[in-house]
Amino acid sequence: MARALELGARGLCGSHPNPSVGCVVLRDGEIVGEGFHARAGQPHAEPLALAQAGARARGAELFVTLEPCAHHGRTPPCVDAVIAAGVRKVWAALADPNPDVDGGGFARLRAAGIEVEVGLLAEQAQRLHRGFLSRMRRGRPWLTLKLAASLDGRTALANGQSRWITGSAARAEVHRRRAEAGAVLTGIGTVLADDPQLTCRESSCAYRGSFLRQPDRIVLDADARAPATAKVWAEGARRFWFTAADGPTPAGVERIAVPRAGSGLDLGAVLTELARREVNEVLAECGPTLAGGLLRSACVDELVLYLAPSLLGHEARPLVTLPGPETLEQRLRWRWRSVERLGEDLRLVLEPDSLSPSPDPHS
Amino acid sequence: MARALELGARGLCGSHPNPSVGCVVLRDGEIVGEGFHARAGQPHAEPLALAQAGARARGAELFVTLEPCAHHGRTPPCVDAVIAAGVRKVWAALADPNPDVDGGGFARLRAAGIEVEVGLLAEQAQRLHRGFLSRMRRGRPWLTLKLAASLDGRTALANGQSRWITGSAARAEVHRRRAEAGAVLTGIGTVLADDPQLTCRESSCAYRGSFLRQPDRIVLDADARAPATAKVWAEGARRFWFTAADGPTPAGVERIAVPRAGSGLDLGAVLTELARREVNEVLAECGPTLAGGLLRSACVDELVLYLAPSLLGHEARPLVTLPGPETLEQRLRWRWRSVERLGEDLRLVLEPDSLSPSPDPHS
Ligand SMILES: [Zn+2]
Ligand SMILES: [Zn+2]
Repeated sequence: MARALELGARGLCGSHPNPSVGCVVLRDGEIVGEGFHARAGQPHAEPLALAQAGARARGAELFVTLEPCAHHGRTPPCVDAVIAAGVRKVWAALADPNPDVDGGGFARLRAAGIEVEVGLLAEQAQRLHRGFLSRMRRGRPWLTLKLAASLDGRTALANGQSRWITGSAARAEVHRRRAEAGAVLTGIGTVLADDPQLTCRESSCAYRGSFLRQPDRIVLDADARAPATAKVWAEGARRFWFTAADGPTPAGVERIAVPRAGSGLDLGAVLTELARREVNEVLAECGPTLAGGLLRSACVDELVLYLAPSLLGHEARPLVTLPGPETLEQRLRWRWRSVERLGEDLRLVLEPDSLSPSPDPHS
Repeated sequence: MARALELGARGLCGSHPNPSVGCVVLRDGEIVGEGFHARAGQPHAEPLALAQAGARARGAELFVTLEPCAHHGRTPPCVDAVIAAGVRKVWAALADPNPDVDGGGFARLRAAGIEVEVGLLAEQAQRLHRGFLSRMRRGRPWLTLKLAASLDGRTALANGQSRWITGSAARAEVHRRRAEAGAVLTGIGTVLADDPQLTCRESSCAYRGSFLRQPDRIVLDADARAPATAKVWAEGARRFWFTAADGPTPAGVERIAVPRAGSGLDLGAVLTELARREVNEVLAECGPTLAGGLLRSACVDELVLYLAPSLLGHEARPLVTLPGPETLEQRLRWRWRSVERLGEDLRLVLEPDSLSPSPDPHS
């Protein structure tokens, strides 16, 4: 199953909106077939692994990171392939949360006399498929907030100079994270200040090669101030413009009206609309205002902070705009998920701590 | 030698102003004697280890973290004890930088026919004896700046509330660092705001027990605003009051006049005066103003940052008051020395990077 999870991770950059499933066929303790779902519309992991195994699949065990599908989508149901191949036993890390499928895959396998065991390495599989699970179970994408700061929690000089605070390894990783998330979200402040492209320009992973799909670009812009010439509107990916104001929409951009909330937009409504458009996972790369809004409204599932070993001083720009809690007990708390050196910087990954106060309904 | 270094570390809290030397006597690959210098005025590491070895020291090898002393101080010269014991060979990690001793110890040993080898684990020994070496070689103490902050680089709420930002493990470690440094430095801002004791109230290390010596307390106070009732003036340790103003001095406090520089005191002059008073190492625990001054004037040899997994927001107090560099190239750069989890927090230890700009002469 560990190998199946590895294989699944290979599909992360291309399988959206499908889960990046990995699959291994094991015969007498030997791997005879492997597969992963590389791109929506292309074959699923299970038929690929079974095709590789060929006749050796008969009587073999099949390990898969998610329940095999039982419905006709863009490809035939995987359960049919599993049954036809004569597999003896299926090990699945997780059941499929998709309402069209839930339980159906396992039921069909069992009805065909195949033994089914669920739950092996379930925690790791939940991490691999977190975006798909979040969309299916919670009706919103998994949201990772990426921040980069100096030791004193500053993102840019007072004059706005911010390029190269972190080193090249951190910058390359951000590009990879964009592709794996499948969608990048930013605010109008960043668009106006930096005019970023928000594309993945990192190609260090050979296996992604031809499957690389540029991530969706999402701009939150309550007053519709984004110019038609902004680089985020360039072709090559889906583009979503969330706003509460009227005005002309650039060609190829989908304009989505959501209500205002506080000084920005209703972030819950934004996430719901994204889930409706089959966005599984979002990487937020934004300035302190939107970052503060996402944090206050408890939209952040994971915080990735790249910490550079330098000091920018108290006049430099703050990491997040977050009105002060009245007491320390009310501060937003996190738990370390991982702490690692990355080139000359640190990469700190955190998840919300249940001790944090409830989200601010007015943010 | 690794064992000798371990033993030396045991003396860190008590040996000031002497170096916390460790010593091991090895006979046929077996340790027959161990010692460390626990407290100034008490026996040095070498005679303790030799006494434990007794007759087995004859023909043995002696490992010591620093060149054995050859002068009559408060105890007789250690080289006499080494020679009298009939040791065959001495391994020293470092030569003594003390001008009264330098080379003398090794010369006396060699003159007595004892083989001498210098340099084994020299780097680790330089770390162990950094305070003593700094005072002897540079005429100033080793200075560690301790900071504690949230993920967004904040030390306290806007209202000043700052207790318990970090967890109990980090707080206990700070107490240990106070004792090991032997002197704690703070600014008048912290004295007026928090009225800290700056004592070591951590007793988790049993071997330190009776040797525990409370660290010197150093207050930088250009305008002599510290009240006579401040807790830092309580008895139980040396107390140094650096100021450029006149006024009455509390009993037992040494008042030291130094010139002003910028909005504070001449920090180089402060460190020189401390070295004259045999202060080897200083732990600075101060507010953002003094921290910024120390950083700007390149007085900081090591930065220890305890990072708490919480967010305090942009209205909270900044980590350091440091006027912004004009460009990113001019920012203060550091190198990671270690990155570790400590209870619920992270402990980040950094050293200055040679790429940082030159110190500001006006700070
Ligand atoms: Zn399928
Ligand atoms: Zn001695």
